[in-house]
This record gives sequence, C-alpha cells and structure tokens, in this order.
Amino acid sequence: MTSIKVSEKPHLNNPILIEGLPGVGNIGRVAAGYLISELKAKKFAHLYSEHFFPFVMLHDSCEIKLLKNEFYYWKAKKKGQRDLIILVGDCQSLSPNGHYDVIENILDFAQKMGVKEVITIGGLATGDVEDHPKVLGSVTDKKLLKKYNKHGIEFTAGEKVGYIVGAAGLLLGLGAERGMDGICLLGETSGFPIVTDPKAAEVVLDSVTKILKLKVDMSKLDKKVKEMERFIKRVESLQKKAIMQIAKEEKAPVSEKEQLRYIG
Amino acid sequence: MTSIKVSEKPHLNNPILIEGLPGVGNIGRVAAGYLISELKAKKFAHLYSEHFFPFVMLHDSCEIKLLKNEFYYWKAKKKGQRDLIILVGDCQSLSPNGHYDVIENILDFAQKMGVKEVITIGGLATGDVEDHPKVLGSVTDKKLLKKYNKHGIEFTAGEKVGYIVGAAGLLLGLGAERGMDGICLLGETSGFPIVTDPKAAEVVLDSVTKILKLKVDMSKLDKKVKEMERFIKRVESLQKKAIMQIAKEEKAPVSEKEQLRYIG
Amino acid sequence: MTSIKVSEKPHLNNPILIEGLPGVGNIGRVAAGYLISELKAKKFAHLYSEHFFPFVMLHDSCEIKLLKNEFYYWKAKKKGQRDLIILVGDCQSLSPNGHYDVIENILDFAQKMGVKEVITIGGLATGDVEDHPKVLGSVTDKKLLKKYNKHGIEFTAGEKVGYIVGAAGLLLGLGAERGMDGICLLGETSGFPIVTDPKAAEVVLDSVTKILKLKVDMSKLDKKVKEMERFIKRVESLQKKAIMQIAKEEKAPVSEKEQLRYIG
Amino acid sequence: MTSIKVSEKPHLNNPILIEGLPGVGNIGRVAAGYLISELKAKKFAHLYSEHFFPFVMLHDSCEIKLLKNEFYYWKAKKKGQRDLIILVGDCQSLSPNGHYDVIENILDFAQKMGVKEVITIGGLATGDVEDHPKVLGSVTDKKLLKKYNKHGIEFTAGEKVGYIVGAAGLLLGLGAERGMDGICLLGETSGFPIVTDPKAAEVVLDSVTKILKLKVDMSKLDKKVKEMERFIKRVESLQKKAIMQIAKEEKAPVSEKEQLRYIG
Repeated sequence: MTSIKVSEKPHLNNPILIEGLPGVGNIGRVAAGYLISELKAKKFAHLYSEHFFPFVMLHDSCEIKLLKNEFYYWKAKKKGQRDLIILVGDCQSLSPNGHYDVIENILDFAQKMGVKEVITIGGLATGDVEDHPKVLGSVTDKKLLKKYNKHGIEFTAGEKVGYIVGAAGLLLGLGAERGMDGICLLGETSGFPIVTDPKAAEVVLDSVTKILKLKVDMSKLDKKVKEMERFIKRVESLQKKAIMQIAKEEKAPVSEKEQLRYIG
Repeated sequence: MTSIKVSEKPHLNNPILIEGLPGVGNIGRVAAGYLISELKAKKFAHLYSEHFFPFVMLHDSCEIKLLKNEFYYWKAKKKGQRDLIILVGDCQSLSPNGHYDVIENILDFAQKMGVKEVITIGGLATGDVEDHPKVLGSVTDKKLLKKYNKHGIEFTAGEKVGYIVGAAGLLLGLGAERGMDGICLLGETSGFPIVTDPKAAEVVLDSVTKILKLKVDMSKLDKKVKEMERFIKRVESLQKKAIMQIAKEEKAPVSEKEQLRYIG
Repeated sequence: MTSIKVSEKPHLNNPILIEGLPGVGNIGRVAAGYLISELKAKKFAHLYSEHFFPFVMLHDSCEIKLLKNEFYYWKAKKKGQRDLIILVGDCQSLSPNGHYDVIENILDFAQKMGVKEVITIGGLATGDVEDHPKVLGSVTDKKLLKKYNKHGIEFTAGEKVGYIVGAAGLLLGLGAERGMDGICLLGETSGFPIVTDPKAAEVVLDSVTKILKLKVDMSKLDKKVKEMERFIKRVESLQKKAIMQIAKEEKAPVSEKEQLRYIG
Repeated sequence: MTSIKVSEKPHLNNPILIEGLPGVGNIGRVAAGYLISELKAKKFAHLYSEHFFPFVMLHDSCEIKLLKNEFYYWKAKKKGQRDLIILVGDCQSLSPNGHYDVIENILDFAQKMGVKEVITIGGLATGDVEDHPKVLGSVTDKKLLKKYNKHGIEFTAGEKVGYIVGAAGLLLGLGAERGMDGICLLGETSGFPIVTDPKAAEVVLDSVTKILKLKVDMSKLDKKVKEMERFIKRVESLQKKAIMQIAKEEKAPVSEKEQLRYIG
C-alpha cells in the first residue's frame, strides 16, 4: 500500500523531476528544500506508504502528521528554463523491498505528469572534512555525458563509491527501464557525524541551477539550512527513538524467574 | 490478510470511534475496557490479521482463542451524547508495515459504519512516577483545538514526545487522509516497569467522558484495572515467550561437531 | 504464493483433519507419521510455499525435493470410524505472517474436502524428563469438552503453557472462524535437547486412536520413531545449516582494510 | 514486483535453461559467463525485482545500472546440440520468500520460451583446498540418472551436503512442479575465503559441455575468470557495504544524552 493524493492538477510542459529525499548529510533534502523555498514552488501532491515507519509525527506541539513524501511544481519563467516537479519528504522506505515499491509508485505518477528526465541529489560520505567539496555525477546512459559534462560535475562517482542506495539511485535505475534519462548529483560531505552540510548543499545546488538555467539567491542558504536542520534532526531523532521502541517491544526479555515452557 | 467478521449490524448515528489497543502502560486498553464495562457496550465485530503473532491463546485453562481486535458499540442515551464504537484488543501488529495494513482495514470498516471522528487513547512514558499525571493531547488539525481545548487536556505532546507509534497515531494520521477529525489523548505514566497504571487511566478517562458527555462511575476503576491487569499481563508474558521461542527456532545454533559445509 | 497440488481426488465422507507438522519434540510429526504408516493412508495432495525455507533437500543421495506439507487420506473401515485426512510435512513457515497464509490455504483446501473437525497434535516442553507424560488438551469451544473429556486427556493446557504457536494452534483458531470444531493434543516432553520422544508420541497416539475409534498396533512405534527420527533430525540439521548460511551471507563482514564510503 | 523485460524474441527449439547466478565460489556465475562469452550467446531479456538490494551500481565510473538477472540465448549449430538459454546476473534475492517469487517468474518466462529441461550450476564449499575438485550432481528424478550418469559426475551430493540453497536448488524443485526435468552440478571448492575458483569452474564446465555436446576452448578460462573476478568481487564488496549502511541506518544508536521518552 503506497498512496499518492493529488490536491491540484497543474498543466506542466515536459517537466523534469528533481528528487531530494533524506539521505547522507541530507544534502538532497536541504538542496531541494532551498530550491522550493527560493522558487516558491507549490505543493500539489503527497505520498504515504506502509513501507514508512509506523508512527505519526507531532508538528507545532500538537498537530498529527503522517510521514510523507511531497511533490511541488514550478513553471518555467524564462526561455531555456523547464517546468519542474520537486520531490522532498520526511523519510524513505524502512524495508529493502519497500524502496522498489515506493519508487515505482513515484515513477508511475511522474510518468503521468509527463516526466522524461530525472535529477536526483544526494551526499557522498568521504569520512573527511571537505573544504572544497566536489559534485560527483553519474548518469543513466553515457551518451548523456555530453549534455551534463560541464557545470562543475566530476563523473567519477563509480570509482569513489560504486553504488547509490535508495531513491537517489533507484529513481534513475528504475526510471531508465521506462525510457527516462537522468543524472544523480552527489555532494562530498564528511558523513560523520551525520549533520546537514550547507557547503556540500551549495556546490550541488550550484550545479543543479546551472543545469536548469535557474537564478537562485544563495545568500539565505546558511540561514535556511539551519532552519531545516532543526526539523530534519528532529525527524531523525524521532525515527531513532521509534526504532528503539519497536526493537525493545519485539525483543522484550522474559523475566528470568519465569520458567520458559513452550509448546507446538 | 486482515479480516473483519461482523456478528451484528447496529444502526449507529454519526458514531465516534474510541481506540484503546495495548501500548505504553496499557492506558488505552484499560480506559477503553472500563468504558465498555461501565457502559455495557456490545461486541458486534472482530478483526484478526496475519500481522499479529502466529499463535493462539488459551483462555479459561483450555479454550483456544485467536488474537483479535474487537469492536463494541453503544448507543447514545441522552441529548448531547454520541453513538460510540469502541475498539479494544489483544495486540497490535507485529511488523512495521502490518500497522498500516491493519489500520487501513479498521478505517475502511469505521467509514462504512459512518465514523467521521476518532479518539485514540495511549500512554506517555515519562520515566518518573507521576503523582499528578497529565493528559496530553494532539489533534489531526489545529482548528480542532477550539473544540477540545478544555476537559483538562494539555496540548504539549509534540514538545514532550514528538511522535505516536502504532494505532493511536496511525488511526488519526491515516484517518485524516479520509477526512476524519480526531484527537489522541495520552496519559502520563512512569512506563517502567510496564505496569497498568490506574491513576493515568483515570485522568484520561476523565477527559474522554467530558468530551463525550458520559457519566461513568469511577469507583470500580481500581478493582477493574486489577482484573484487567491479570489478563493483560498474561497476554504480554505469552507474547514475550512466543517471541523468544520463535527467535530460538530461527537462530538455533549448529552443533560445533557438525562441520559446516554449504552449497549454492 | 502458497500452492496446493492435487494428485488424486478421493471422495471422503465428513472427513476429520489430523495435523502433525514439525514442532516441539516432533510429537505431532511422529504420531501422524505412524498413523499414516499403520493405516496405510494414501498421499493425495501436497503444498509448498514461499514462506518455507528457500532451499531444496536432497533425498537418497541425489534426488531434489522441494520442502512440502503433504495430505494423506484414509477411508473408514468400520462403523463408528471416520474418514481421515492426515497432514504431515518437512517444515512450517519461516516468517510469522507466513503461518497465517499457509494455514488459511490449508483450511481452504480442507473445507473443499468437506472437513468440519480438526485434531492437531503437538508437544509441550516441560524442561523435565517425564516418566509418565500427560496428554494436555485444548478445544475451540468449551462445549466440546463433553465430547472429548475422556480418552486420558487433561484439559489444563491453558494453565501449563497458555498459548500454542504455529499450525497446531492456528489451524484451530482460524478453523473456528470458519465454523470448524477442533481439539489440540499436546504430549508432555522434556523439550531439551529437542529429540523425538516415542513415549510422548505414544500417549498422544493413544488418545487420538481412542477419539477416532481406530485400532493401531503400537508395537512397531519405537522402531518407526527411530527411523523417522533419522529423517527428521536430518531436515532439522539442514535447516539450521541453511539458516546459518543465509545469516552469514546477509551479515558478511566488510574487510577492515576497505574504507567504508557510503552514499545516498 | 518482479519484472522481465524482453529486448528480442528469438525462436528457440526445445531450449534447455542453464543457470549460473552468484553463489558459493561463484562457480555457476563464472562457468555460465564463460559459456556465454565462448559461444557468443546473445542477450535477449533481463529481470529485476523488489527482492534485490535497494541500490544501483555504477559501471565504468559513472553509468547507473539496476541490479539484474539476464537471459542469453544460443542456437544449436550441429546435430545433437540443443538451443540454449543461459541465465546469469548480479545477485539473487535478499529475502527468503523473494527467492520463491523471483524463481517462479523465471520459470514462467522459461516455460513460455519452451523450456522443459534445466541445468543449474553451483559450488559446494568443502572447507579444504581441493586439488582435484569433483562435480557432484543431483537430479529432479532418479530416472534421470541413466541420462546423466557419465560425464564425470558423482551423484553423492545428498551425502555431502544435503540441501541446495537459492536459485540452483529452487529452479529445479519448483521446475519439477511444472513437469520440468533437471540436474544441478556442484563443483567442489574450498569456500573460504570466498574467491572465484577457476579449477572448480573448469571441472563443472567440462561436465556441462559434455552433456550439451558443445566444444568450448578452455584455454582462455583462467584469463576470463580473472576478468570476471574483478567485477564479481566489486559487486560483492558493494553489496556488503550497502548491507552495512542499511543495517547502520536501521539500528542507529540514540545519543545517551537524549532521554528516551516513548509513547503509544
């Protein structure tokens, strides 16, 4: 059970899908969130799934919210720009097979909206503090290198990491099966402790805006990242607590005084 | 596979759903159970699911019972009261995704019964013994605060805990997706060791009866809670033993004398 | 995916289903197996499931066999006897929810064959060597006590253990939802180390044959149990090895020399 | 969700399916891969599944690839030869029940292509370095021994190991349920550390080519195995890292400073 609820049906012209769900360093989440905020993109649909954590979050002290992924759109303002669908959210799938299910649902929806191209954003944990983080790219087809081989992207992700876990990877892998082209942009970040890294988000955003011919004022990025960080850290912390609670309930120890008598 | 079997089809007028399944301190289970007992609510349906533990319980020394969630109804007696559906049961889902499935089934059924409003009851483990436990509320929509902002409820659950696991949270989160309004009431309780806490149950019951304009004699609560506690503790203990048995069978060690030869 | 393949369609008159799948002390497996052998019951269907272990067994040095549950039938010879369907097999479900799925499939099939009554056989691990093991009964409905309350069965399983895991319990619990009556017979056995216990199997068989008005020569039981034990121990040992192999593959450690760089 | 995408529809005459997916010592993967390379077999379909790892791999430094199983075909050139379908791939299922699902999908497809016979290839880890590794066979039906009881195969796998995990076993076990005949060939290999073993691959390939009446030049095997080994080791290493990353995310410890307050 993965459901997508639509609140508005925008008419988009050959839109490109930008994904920024939680992941390493939350680079994608922060970069896509800043894009939404600066472009004033509009929410038009959300997704929830049995593959997400089995809890709700409390916003603003007492308002109950399902865990969700959310779709925003933005219509091109100038020549050379493209209509955009931006995907952000609280979480990714909890179970391995859930990733495939959630992402197939996202792609079904994107296809109905006319999406033929996907950009996913993520982080690559290097284990070092990166003073000059790079943007590492990978593509669904090498013929796309000609198109993307500028904008400060190094196409060496394969040597540096070799695989991409979750939505940032599967949206492109499963998208390619539907004939969609795409690129994954990974910002180098320390990865430890997992904090939101504005520097890495900025370099990735720089590449994204160049690809999309967008003008985005980066001056508020630091401030916005700090704001988002509070929320993201809260979600992460809640998820960790919830996992511990679930684990505790599932593996509750039996009092040693009780003699274990079993049956079958 | 989640099934709901109906033994009677009551005609209910705009009923409100009250949930009290097992959880922290079993506040919900105890409060809803006492309400059923005092109101003499009538059982009319039950639910079982592949997401529950794969065992049956033995009641009264030798009678086999599936693990179940059960639906009771009560029809309003006075002006200002509402018809009620009260949901109690032996357990919640064993697997994370099972929570979503079971609760969507409950909501499908509730919707068919005409439910548009939900009250869920739970406990919040504070880690301290609470002499004057509070009732913490959270709602599906802030506009509901005006309606519920009395009856001794503090709307600070978000600050104190931030998330609600399982049925008490998902019934409201997923219910809101269907246009249902709702409130979750959490009674503060020590949470350790997990015992049934009549004091916490009483404060929550007090808020519930005020919301529902019910007159419920609380004088038998202590006695009833002790009775229910025996049953609830038994179920908990059996579940822990069963989990250990399952875990033991799944991770049975191989005799060291057997040389491990494997194949593929 | 749980499939039942039928090799013969016997016409049975109000048959009773006897279940003896692997479990504690393999009492059920051994008792049902001996019954099949002594009655010369005939195999007519088998079941396999994605919920079983993902491996095949090698019989007779080189013949590949899926893990299966198997259905045998026997037609009543004398007045007072009943047609029987006997269910035995290599294993039960690997996952908790799989138990429900497999057993619902068994009950669908049994219902089509006209089954309205079920006897399940299992063991109860007491932790002590039992010189005079008892047979503990539990029933789907207390009104059945009158029918079964003889044949040397003590109806105290609820006090001694409280729950029945897997097929022996769920066949009755889920069967009762379909209007089937039934009894579970548990033979007391040490339970540690898990060996096949002919003494416990004999007392349970004694009760089963009295209920069913069967004459079964018990003199070959010891010999037969030893024969079956070899096979059962082999299956258990293979399952343990296979679980270890699967666990090993899933949790394979990463060389410490490889720097962990991850991505998302 | 398991999908098979077909890029070409070859007309094959009574083809035999040869399986060589990753497993112990990667004997099957290497042997089948060498066969594809030497026969110049042609890729015509691929399979991906939610039961595979939830990540994509990066080939050639920056090209994103879903994890896949791939089908190749080869048409008989001489009398006595058979048309072949060769199945190789990056991985097998991550979850136990996924194995059944993926293999039922493979068998559905194979059946549509006219397959009635299956050969699976694997390794048997002996724990010793084998100077003269044997080929151990097992069959879906003992009557097949007459057909295969030559070509240097010893039919003692049952005594040496007793079970076959994953595709090499289930393709035959589940295939037999559809009336398919088949043989599993296991090359003895040390199994520790898990490296690709050209000697074991060669003895198995020798048996396979004799069964199929193929002439295959073995002189390039060592070189090819080394080439494949690089790729296979990379995939294995990525899978291990990915598993660790997933495990890390699922079991992320909660800061000790955070007081655990939970709710329900």
